[in-house]
Amino acid sequence: MTVATNRTKADGCRDNETDIAAPHTIDAFHHGGFYLVQPEGKGHRAGLDAMLLAALVPDDAVGRLADLGAGAGAAGFAVASRIPDLLVTLFERSAQMVECANRSMILPQNRHLASRISVLQADVALGGRARLAAGLADSLYDHVIMNPPFNDSTDRTTPDDLKAEAHAMTEHMFSQWIRTACAIARPGGQLSLIARPHSLAEIISACDRRFGGLQVTPVHPRPGQNAIRILLTGIKASRARLALCPPLFVHDGTERAFSARVDDLSNGRASLTR
Amino acid sequence: MTVATNRTKADGCRDNETDIAAPHTIDAFHHGGFYLVQPEGKGHRAGLDAMLLAALVPDDAVGRLADLGAGAGAAGFAVASRIPDLLVTLFERSAQMVECANRSMILPQNRHLASRISVLQADVALGGRARLAAGLADSLYDHVIMNPPFNDSTDRTTPDDLKAEAHAMTEHMFSQWIRTACAIARPGGQLSLIARPHSLAEIISACDRRFGGLQVTPVHPRPGQNAIRILLTGIKASRARLALCPPLFVHDGTERAFSARVDDLSNGRASLTR
Repeated sequence: MTVATNRTKADGCRDNETDIAAPHTIDAFHHGGFYLVQPEGKGHRAGLDAMLLAALVPDDAVGRLADLGAGAGAAGFAVASRIPDLLVTLFERSAQMVECANRSMILPQNRHLASRISVLQADVALGGRARLAAGLADSLYDHVIMNPPFNDSTDRTTPDDLKAEAHAMTEHMFSQWIRTACAIARPGGQLSLIARPHSLAEIISACDRRFGGLQVTPVHPRPGQNAIRILLTGIKASRARLALCPPLFVHDGTERAFSARVDDLSNGRASLTR
Repeated sequence: MTVATNRTKADGCRDNETDIAAPHTIDAFHHGGFYLVQPEGKGHRAGLDAMLLAALVPDDAVGRLADLGAGAGAAGFAVASRIPDLLVTLFERSAQMVECANRSMILPQNRHLASRISVLQADVALGGRARLAAGLADSLYDHVIMNPPFNDSTDRTTPDDLKAEAHAMTEHMFSQWIRTACAIARPGGQLSLIARPHSLAEIISACDRRFGGLQVTPVHPRPGQNAIRILLTGIKASRARLALCPPLFVHDGTERAFSARVDDLSNGRASLTR
């Protein structure tokens, strides 16, 4: 099951259009609504997680959105594709992924989005002056979204370095990332993230006095199975209580296809509104 | 919608059988599997919460179970009614509720359970020697269950003192109650509790280094509505990760009756196994 609906292989090409030495692919999302350049067969490949994360931003959002740890930019592109009035900034530490995002920006298929998307190479775990110097400006963003690396050191080792970097969860990572999200969000701004259920405690703790009114949506593979992801939103400085929202089921019954709801969310036809 | 299926009013009677000055009722649970004496029209009345809490104890449980803040004893009685090999101790601070539990013990309808249930008046928030002196012995219990008071000071005031006491959530309450649960549970013993979703952060924090392998089951009134309760179990000293389990829906669609699953759980015909 892949979210990308169309893929072009571009093995090790080095031409004017792409200028990437490593093999990469160009994948269609939102049924051709936008395309992403991604390293082929290695690194964290964008899929359902990024699409569900993007679905947390409401249809009527305006202003500026920051995608922290954006990777190739899947979530940020998906938001820009669905919501016409948002300016999207992708922040990513990996030079290779930043290059992918930059190449996606100049794809002719993305011409309708490119003017609203910018890419900055930055480590979102930075604090203080280093964070400001990296371009993560205070109180600027109406929305902050993040799909943080979700494997930690107790998981089995990932097979390649790029994937390992994308998936490696350092100690206190949520604390650092959510601290940054709070710093760059305007008052009343919305944090949206996707994570694994066992990170819930660390996330809630990191949101303390930063983001309130937390709304948690469990994502289950099928009815009757434990959740594999949580979708979470919060509002900067809100004191409202945590709510557990109706769950999402990726598949209905024994079907291999996505449930209608998840298919709509993953293709930009619906959003998960607060 | 009430879980109790049969009720006898006993207005202000003061006789040999009951010896309770205040009006009270005798309510049937588990379709007559056991009966509870409860203050009439005031105090926290046992219902679905207590029955779902009891459903968290597995069918094959053996040894000793402590019901912390037992009220009239609904959850403890429900466990004893379903599981034949458990010895149940009810701990309750309110003298009036302890008296109700004691009267339930001597009801002829409960004769089959009474030898396995005992009642102790104790404040489960006690620590150290005071806790031991109150009868909350260290490392004795295979299971600890709790349905802590769930209104806090920001909720609207409850209309009567007894209900207010049952529902008043003091600061750090979960921390105190879960500390006691950990102290009295044997290594590997199971904690089971029911609470409101917004208490999840405080509960997870209180379980830190005490109970692990947390399993959280959201309880939604109906599909598409936010959860109104969480059921949570944990194992003393486990280091396993938190899991978000499949949700329960109290009602299906627009039906007024309980869903089949919740009806089974609330009547002792099924359990929510880990």
